[in-house]
Amino acid sequence: MWLFMTDASALKNSSFSPAGLPVEQGAEPTFGASEAGFVAAVERRLREALLLGEDADSAGELLSEASTHLTLADAAKRARPRLLWYFARALSEGDLFSDGPGAQEEFAALVDFAVVAELIHTASLMHDDVLDEATLRRGLPSVNANWGNCIAVLGGDAMLVKGLQMLEPYGMNFMSLGLKVVGQMTHSLVLEVQSRAQTDVTEETWHAIADGKTGILFGWCGSTPAMRAGKSDIAERLHRCGHHLGVAFQLADDLKDLTGADVGKHRFTDIRTRTPAYPLVWAMNASPETRARFEELWASEEISEDDVESAGQQLLESGALEATQAALRLEIDSALEALGEYATRPGGREIAGFAMSLRGFL
Amino acid sequence: MWLFMTDASALKNSSFSPAGLPVEQGAEPTFGASEAGFVAAVERRLREALLLGEDADSAGELLSEASTHLTLADAAKRARPRLLWYFARALSEGDLFSDGPGAQEEFAALVDFAVVAELIHTASLMHDDVLDEATLRRGLPSVNANWGNCIAVLGGDAMLVKGLQMLEPYGMNFMSLGLKVVGQMTHSLVLEVQSRAQTDVTEETWHAIADGKTGILFGWCGSTPAMRAGKSDIAERLHRCGHHLGVAFQLADDLKDLTGADVGKHRFTDIRTRTPAYPLVWAMNASPETRARFEELWASEEISEDDVESAGQQLLESGALEATQAALRLEIDSALEALGEYATRPGGREIAGFAMSLRGFL
Repeated sequence: MWLFMTDASALKNSSFSPAGLPVEQGAEPTFGASEAGFVAAVERRLREALLLGEDADSAGELLSEASTHLTLADAAKRARPRLLWYFARALSEGDLFSDGPGAQEEFAALVDFAVVAELIHTASLMHDDVLDEATLRRGLPSVNANWGNCIAVLGGDAMLVKGLQMLEPYGMNFMSLGLKVVGQMTHSLVLEVQSRAQTDVTEETWHAIADGKTGILFGWCGSTPAMRAGKSDIAERLHRCGHHLGVAFQLADDLKDLTGADVGKHRFTDIRTRTPAYPLVWAMNASPETRARFEELWASEEISEDDVESAGQQLLESGALEATQAALRLEIDSALEALGEYATRPGGREIAGFAMSLRGFL
Repeated sequence: MWLFMTDASALKNSSFSPAGLPVEQGAEPTFGASEAGFVAAVERRLREALLLGEDADSAGELLSEASTHLTLADAAKRARPRLLWYFARALSEGDLFSDGPGAQEEFAALVDFAVVAELIHTASLMHDDVLDEATLRRGLPSVNANWGNCIAVLGGDAMLVKGLQMLEPYGMNFMSLGLKVVGQMTHSLVLEVQSRAQTDVTEETWHAIADGKTGILFGWCGSTPAMRAGKSDIAERLHRCGHHLGVAFQLADDLKDLTGADVGKHRFTDIRTRTPAYPLVWAMNASPETRARFEELWASEEISEDDVESAGQQLLESGALEATQAALRLEIDSALEALGEYATRPGGREIAGFAMSLRGFL
């Protein structure tokens, strides 16, 4: 429901927020009762998971405090839980989650999966902020800023372990996939570290980074409900759908930075922070002059606002905006193609709506 | 065999090295052919595991390089693989690992478990060095010193994931225990961070830290072969045996720092680095004067060598040496009690021999 908007303001007003960026505080979206109920159940279970009950010594309290601070921040929009919910609804025959035999058990399983997704996602944010030396996250001081790098690293580790432990009751297939997700996210964070301030990043590397940043966990939100529903034949397809949505999401975010559509955030932040976002990667590969310009800019100690603005204008004139729009279109089309006939079902409609809403950026 | 020595030089000349401390380079111990063969097989498999074949992009190469640097360092003595080997031999009826049906499969499983132990252990060293800002490890530059904190954090994460993935073929019981080990190690690292330079650490907290540092993974080396052998009734007992050995190992290390028995390492390093090792924890809890002394010492910016020496002498006069010896004796006795009748078997004899060798420090 809340995603079914096609104008450019959809993302800003929706609960979807790009991984790793401060969330716009817009009007609260209205949810159908059951979706809101699901998210509330996820948040209750998240709080329980973070209490780390049996380890309630000083270390347990500290870990709990730091991880609750970030995980239960008001600005967390639960994009991954909602996506899981939509996929599960699209997969269910009739309304699996409100009645019928086994409905309660399936609801509980879905809540668990959503909690796992949030734990893994939040752990990656915690580690990411250490790598970036970020001081703000979800409108609050980052965990590393408040408790130091040690606790941010160990807190992330603890959350990953907790997330994986929650998969134990569901069997080795689910565990195996969860480990694969974490491994790939770690791997792509290394690529991101290696790419910082680099002007020779290929589109392939950009994609590998985007895969780990949002793609694989969004994909997991598609494949996991399919596996749980015993529909392993379409798990790969829905994974692909989620994955393309995740990458599209990154691209929309890169576009917003280029157009300044993100209210409350400075334009051209990627240039300022020497982040090889898609438009920059495309432009540097398309033109040796642009690459030379950024080589010089990113090699300098300080980057003035005048330099940022003029490099940004050069970027816009290079055709990077149009190229990013084309890449975004491709991801949206691929996501919709993978979604196929599910797009017409409850749940599937919301997923399609989300994909369509990203078209607002084209 | 190599552990079956009862004098104080046993540890120095043996392959056992305290987790997290530079290893003494003594005479190479002689191993029975099969133990050496096992360790060689473990190292081959470790190298394979670290190659991260399918992810052979720049990030994969970097992760592989950094993790191989530390994991396959010459100074790594494979304490945990050897312990696993001893426990497995003690458990086997006849010589399970050289002939008989299924022997090859059991050997391969044991190699896998040993690799898992080394991956988890090495990952914890990598993260530990980030927390301690250590520059040396196993006689080489630490991973954080060579490649930076980011790669040390992510490299540790990648190795943990890889280690857990290697448990997948063995079923959920093994996976579950592996996750528990990683979770407890993380938890106790938090306690260690919290305890640094603190003068109010309780003996209970010291034990919780030692559990995570060596106890739980040493314990795992006892319980895992028992589980694999289908002898779950004694898994808990052998876990306890390994666990006490691990804690005894820490205590022997603390004693060496107090007596200066560790050639090539400065005496009283724990005082210098504000580490609440067992003798210090005991002394500070036994005497308010000693606590006040260390409060003053550890609150100061710089600690002079004269201050270290005089605080060390005060510690020795406080009875901390004898108290640590008593704690060590208790751990050794508990380990031997848990080992029970296995102490007379091949493999069990080596474990008992290791425990006895630690008596050299009494």
